Amino acid sequence: MKIKIGFGVDVHQLVQNRDLVIGGVKIPAELGALGHSDADVLLHSICDAMLGALNLRDIGYHFSDQDPKYKDIDSKILLRETFLLVKDKGFVLGNLDATVILEKPKVNPHIPEMQKVIAELLETELENVSIKATTHEKVDSFGQQKAVKAYVVCLLEKA
Amino acid sequence: MKIKIGFGVDVHQLVQNRDLVIGGVKIPAELGALGHSDADVLLHSICDAMLGALNLRDIGYHFSDQDPKYKDIDSKILLRETFLLVKDKGFVLGNLDATVILEKPKVNPHIPEMQKVIAELLETELENVSIKATTHEKVDSFGQQKAVKAYVVCLLEKA
Amino acid sequence: MKIKIGFGVDVHQLVQNRDLVIGGVKIPAELGALGHSDADVLLHSICDAMLGALNLRDIGYHFSDQDPKYKDIDSKILLRETFLLVKDKGFVLGNLDATVILEKPKVNPHIPEMQKVIAELLETELENVSIKATTHEKVDSFGQQKAVKAYVVCLLEKA
Repeated sequence: MKIKIGFGVDVHQLVQNRDLVIGGVKIPAELGALGHSDADVLLHSICDAMLGALNLRDIGYHFSDQDPKYKDIDSKILLRETFLLVKDKGFVLGNLDATVILEKPKVNPHIPEMQKVIAELLETELENVSIKATTHEKVDSFGQQKAVKAYVVCLLEKA
Repeated sequence: MKIKIGFGVDVHQLVQNRDLVIGGVKIPAELGALGHSDADVLLHSICDAMLGALNLRDIGYHFSDQDPKYKDIDSKILLRETFLLVKDKGFVLGNLDATVILEKPKVNPHIPEMQKVIAELLETELENVSIKATTHEKVDSFGQQKAVKAYVVCLLEKA
Repeated sequence: MKIKIGFGVDVHQLVQNRDLVIGGVKIPAELGALGHSDADVLLHSICDAMLGALNLRDIGYHFSDQDPKYKDIDSKILLRETFLLVKDKGFVLGNLDATVILEKPKVNPHIPEMQKVIAELLETELENVSIKATTHEKVDSFGQQKAVKAYVVCLLEKA
């Protein structure tokens, strides 16, 4: 068995008049994530972790934030395209473990829905898609509700 | 061999009149870590990494910081309960690699003791429990001695 | 096959009158990285990830920033020494995935050269050395061009 490790991290500012989309799920919130696409911090981190595992560069390389084609795009499309690159190389997801850092609102109630969305896009079992959420304990911008962050690690296995 | 990856990260503010407990070891320090439990940033990150590897949600899900039962609790108890969940699923620790971010005091002199505590709780060899420590180079709250952070990655193996 | 996971993270302040060396490559920039050595945030993180995977302590333990021997040292030397410790234990690199956080200048154009430098030092194929770069979206010191950070995960395999 050939096994590869990947890691992704992404950050977006939180601002007024934007949606807060995390893990493909729109979360009711006062502030939303700023970005060229829908600014889905979790899906972007998963893209980067999977691309990194196979040395396929990063999300900005494949889906440039200078390209009008990706303006406000649904990041589920980007994750699906990423997965197809991985599949093309003969790999499947072993498992991924994600952590979302957001002061509020609570992410936890939305996690089961996110897992379902992501597992389907990645053609894997729900049990291989772990999503955790935590606050930043009021520390710095992430703790003051000015920004959101996600970390993802993954293992990919040669199918 | 079935192998799963997990990642945990935790943050606590540093304040007066609290103990600084890291990796199950009380470290002499001017400032301690703020939290509902003993606020052991390292053990919490290990819990999250192990839970995440098996998609068992996260530390806040199992041990709520709203529950008086966990007020000031020794996080060694939480790590032990986490390990039993993992063991129940038929997995053991492959290895874990932790990084503690703290401006001062120096964590390094206490690492061997932390490793002993953690290896025993996780029923593993010392060599599978790596703990590293570094400063945040005076950058932001972590660098100004206002907060402490830990990152943990782990591999779990089907026994 | 015996497989071990490692994680490294490193931070350096950005200041005037210092070079910006990342991944062994000198990048033209207004600000450089502050540190005792050449302050190569990427090579330091790789060292820490590889040392951590085998529980060989950390970069500060092996190459003290109090030791004049390492003043302004080329971190390629430190990475090579780290690799020799790993090799001595009978391990080789499976793969590593790195993320550099820098607001500007753009790191991307230099990634192919970094990969070549690192792959050679680690006696591995280019495809096993993934380097990604992203900004911190103007958030906190990393987003305000006051500091640079790198994260690295790796798998080491018993040869």
